[in-house]
Amino acid sequence: MTILDGKKISNDIKDEIAEEVKKMKLNGEKAPHLAAVIVGNDGASLTYVGSKVRACERVGFESTLVQLPNTCSEVELMDTIDELNANDDIDGFIIQLPLPPQINTEKVLLAVDPKKDVDGFHPMNFGKMALDMSTFIPATPFGILELFDRYGVETKGKHTVVIGRSHIVGRPMSILMGRKGFPGNSTVTLTHSHTKNISEITRQADIIITALGVPKFLKADMVKEGVVVIDVGITRVPDSTKTKGYYITGDVDFETVSKKASYITPVPGGVGPMTIAMLLKNTLLARDMHS
Amino acid sequence: MTILDGKKISNDIKDEIAEEVKKMKLNGEKAPHLAAVIVGNDGASLTYVGSKVRACERVGFESTLVQLPNTCSEVELMDTIDELNANDDIDGFIIQLPLPPQINTEKVLLAVDPKKDVDGFHPMNFGKMALDMSTFIPATPFGILELFDRYGVETKGKHTVVIGRSHIVGRPMSILMGRKGFPGNSTVTLTHSHTKNISEITRQADIIITALGVPKFLKADMVKEGVVVIDVGITRVPDSTKTKGYYITGDVDFETVSKKASYITPVPGGVGPMTIAMLLKNTLLARDMHS
Repeated sequence: MTILDGKKISNDIKDEIAEEVKKMKLNGEKAPHLAAVIVGNDGASLTYVGSKVRACERVGFESTLVQLPNTCSEVELMDTIDELNANDDIDGFIIQLPLPPQINTEKVLLAVDPKKDVDGFHPMNFGKMALDMSTFIPATPFGILELFDRYGVETKGKHTVVIGRSHIVGRPMSILMGRKGFPGNSTVTLTHSHTKNISEITRQADIIITALGVPKFLKADMVKEGVVVIDVGITRVPDSTKTKGYYITGDVDFETVSKKASYITPVPGGVGPMTIAMLLKNTLLARDMHS
Repeated sequence: MTILDGKKISNDIKDEIAEEVKKMKLNGEKAPHLAAVIVGNDGASLTYVGSKVRACERVGFESTLVQLPNTCSEVELMDTIDELNANDDIDGFIIQLPLPPQINTEKVLLAVDPKKDVDGFHPMNFGKMALDMSTFIPATPFGILELFDRYGVETKGKHTVVIGRSHIVGRPMSILMGRKGFPGNSTVTLTHSHTKNISEITRQADIIITALGVPKFLKADMVKEGVVVIDVGITRVPDSTKTKGYYITGDVDFETVSKKASYITPVPGGVGPMTIAMLLKNTLLARDMHS
C-alpha cells in the first residue's frame, strides 16, 4: 500500500513554481500576481484565504487580499470584480465562498473574466473542460489528477466511482476521469444521494474518489482488494480532548480501508494541500496566457 | 413493452410550437427566426439542413439558409457569424457540421453569441448546463429528456449507462442524467472505447443510452429484463435490394432487445425526429430570451 502524500507532492510543486518564478525575475519579468476577495469575517474562510496568501509568498508570487465587510452589497462586490478584471497587473483572482445571503453567487461568478478565473468555476471554463479544450481546471480536481500523474497511477480502462456530485469536486472529477488522455480514459460512475445499493457499486471500483463530507462513510467491506482511494471529505468532529476542540477526518475509514488499498490519500495531508498548490499552478498558467 | 415513439412526440411538439407561434402572430409579435449556415455541398449535411428549414416552415418560424462554398475561408465564415450575431432579427442560428479542413471548428463555435447558440455547443452554454444553470441543452440530449418526460419514464435512483462520450450526445447525456430534478437523479456510468467488460456494466443498467454508431452492437444477452433502451446510433448499411442502396440501423439489435425492454426507441423514428423538434424549441426559448 502506497500513501499518496499530498503534503510532500504539494511542496514539490511549490518548489518547482518558486524555481520558475525565480527565473522569471532574473529575466526581468514580472512575477505572477494572485488576488483574493473575501466578504465578511467567517473564521474558516479567513483561514483558507490566509493560507492562499502565504502560499503566494512562499513561491514568490505577488498577492493582493481584498477584504469587504459582511454588509457589502452586490453592487460593491461587482465593482471590485470589474476593477480586478480591468487591472492588467493582476493575472488571476478568486472570490472566497460562501458569500453572504444578500449576494447572488451565480451572478458574481459569471462576472469574473474567464481569463482570470483561476478557480475554474466560470461556466465558460467549466464548459471548455467538459469539451476537452484547454482551460483552467478547478484546483481540487486538478490536484487529484496531479497525484495520479506523479505516482503513475493507471486510470485507463479502470472503473472510477465518484461519490458526490458537487460543482467543485464530484461533477468535474467525473468528467475529467472520462476524458481522453492520462489521467483519464476511465469508465466513470457518478453516485450521489439518490444512488441505490452504493456498496455494490463501490465494490466494483478500481478507483474511488469520495467527496461526501460524511466521516468514515467508506468502510473496508465496501471496497475490493487493490482499490485506489482518494478522500476529498474533510469534516471537523468535536473532540474535547483536542486543543482545538475537534479533529479532522475524511469520508474514509482509513484504518481498515488502507489495508485493502493499493494507493490511498490520508486526511489531513492528502488532497487538501494539493488544492492550494494547483491554485498557484493555475495562476502561473494565467500569467503565461496574458504575457 | 412500450415503443418511445419519437416521430409522434416530435409531431406533438411541433404542433404545440405552431400553436404558440400562431398566438404570437395574432398578438402582433414577430415569429421566431432561425438561421442555418452550411459550408460546401456534402449530401448528408444538405439533407439535415433542408429538414431544419422545412421544420421551421411547418411551425411558422422564419428561416434563413446561408450557403457558403466549400472553398470558403475561415475569415469569410467568421464574418458571416459576426453578421448573424449582430442581426437583431435572428433569434438563433446553427453552423452545420462538419466544416471543411481549412476551417478551425473550435474557433468558429466559440464565435457564436451564446445567446443565439441554439445547438448548445458553445462552452459557455455547455458549462452552464453542467453547473445546473438554465441554458440551451444540445438538441439530441434535450430530445431524450423530453421522451422520458412525455412517457413518464422514472429516472431517479436508476442506474443509467451511457455508451459513447461524444461532445454532442454521450458527454452531455451523462451529465444531464446525473443532475438534480426530473429527468435526472440517476446514478450514471459513462462507458467508451477503453471500457473493459462492457456487458457486465450494461447488464446492471436500468436505462441504456447508446450513441456509438456500431450497427446492432447491443444484444439481448447484454441487457437485463425491464431495461429502458435509447438508441442514438444511426448507421447506413449498404443494401442493394433497397431503392436508396442502403438501410438505416441503430446500435441496438431491436428484434431481440425489445423483447426484454420495458421502453425502447426504434431506429428510425425514435431519437432522430426529436432532435429537430428540440432545435425548434431552443429557438423559441432564444426568442423569449431576446424579447
